[in-house]
Amino acid sequence: MLDNLSIVLFGTKFPENVGSSARAMTNMGCENLTLVRPASWDMEKARPLATVKGRDIVEKALIADELSEALKDQTRVYGTTARTGGWRKGVMTPSTAAPLIVEQLRAGEKVAVVFGPEDRGLTNDETQLCSRLINIPTSHENSSLNLSQAVLIILYECFKNALDKPFTPAGPPEERPTSFEEQEILASNLQETLLAIDFLKADNPDYWMMPVRRFMSKIDIKRNEFNLLMGICRQIKWIAGQAGKK
Amino acid sequence: MLDNLSIVLFGTKFPENVGSSARAMTNMGCENLTLVRPASWDMEKARPLATVKGRDIVEKALIADELSEALKDQTRVYGTTARTGGWRKGVMTPSTAAPLIVEQLRAGEKVAVVFGPEDRGLTNDETQLCSRLINIPTSHENSSLNLSQAVLIILYECFKNALDKPFTPAGPPEERPTSFEEQEILASNLQETLLAIDFLKADNPDYWMMPVRRFMSKIDIKRNEFNLLMGICRQIKWIAGQAGKK
Repeated sequence: MLDNLSIVLFGTKFPENVGSSARAMTNMGCENLTLVRPASWDMEKARPLATVKGRDIVEKALIADELSEALKDQTRVYGTTARTGGWRKGVMTPSTAAPLIVEQLRAGEKVAVVFGPEDRGLTNDETQLCSRLINIPTSHENSSLNLSQAVLIILYECFKNALDKPFTPAGPPEERPTSFEEQEILASNLQETLLAIDFLKADNPDYWMMPVRRFMSKIDIKRNEFNLLMGICRQIKWIAGQAGKK
Repeated sequence: MLDNLSIVLFGTKFPENVGSSARAMTNMGCENLTLVRPASWDMEKARPLATVKGRDIVEKALIADELSEALKDQTRVYGTTARTGGWRKGVMTPSTAAPLIVEQLRAGEKVAVVFGPEDRGLTNDETQLCSRLINIPTSHENSSLNLSQAVLIILYECFKNALDKPFTPAGPPEERPTSFEEQEILASNLQETLLAIDFLKADNPDYWMMPVRRFMSKIDIKRNEFNLLMGICRQIKWIAGQAGKK
């Protein structure tokens, strides 16, 4: 039911937490686990906490060096965060994100949920790769959830929603969702373009790009729209070239 | 907020699970823990998993010999079960039980939720002391949740319900929706801009604008994003002017 949903654990420090997360995944019917740069990774420490049912998930977990590599084939990326201030606007709760995720899974999308290291969570750089952020409501006294507890809550909300809703088939192929890779191509193309027209300041374009990225990330860009936007960028860069910019 | 809610762990086999349950309790603002006949109870094994924040809960946990004794002062008792057949009719889910529990807490009642031993859960005898039973939805592949995971889910549902207003991380005022008028201003500005860079053909720009309009119309554009997009258009038109277009 949650076949196209992946859990991505970024920089997990304790293999035991990978194990308990795998167990929680089997409880909620999710089987795809990717580990990005797991610190002192040790299958032997992870396995006992995964229990018999979660062992397969741990053994088949993909291991990646870079978050962007781990997300390459996903069409939607959700990040989890304990912080909600600053740039982290429009943060969702598990109960509001889950119906959306389930709807996307039903439309044939591949959805990843990313969890940061136990001690610090995802940084701003890492959350920029995520189109939406999810914050689990907790007591102000202690907002630090154990990693597998956080994984469980997200999956539990998705599982509940997946039980509730009937299946609806996908739309026409040219309206297929863009992959993470295409979204990144578009974002960097857009950044080049905005630099070419002096809209972004050359000294720290990544920083000035943030509101643009945030705006783009909330749009569910389809493949045909990707082509449209890439075409507009091409034309703007051409004009900028004519104007002696580049 | 969940001051009058108690977690009762019956016959828990591993002190570590008591520790992680205590941690989950602090995450969700619940502080009352009772242990009934905990097997090989060892505070030293429980404490590390409780983390600093949950240590108090473990140290102040009440210990009872009988379930009935542990429940003496409660006004409502909920049991948790992984089984739903036979006599276990009218079993609730966490999402249906939580609003009821919170209503009872608000009315000044003292509510306990009882969790059985890790391996076998509550027996029929024990569930008879409970006025209602709660079953956490899980995959058929693996319905066995770790004890602290089960505790967390029940408390998470109660916590969500107890927050006076639905938990929504607030957005700032500049994120107000754009008016229809603003959307039209933006669309015509965009059309001018795309004409200026020769992306739209001059003979029938309205027609060529249609996919762009369709794309824009699906985006819920906020006021700050309106400003952002108007700024980009201005800059593109300026560049086009430099290039001798206009």
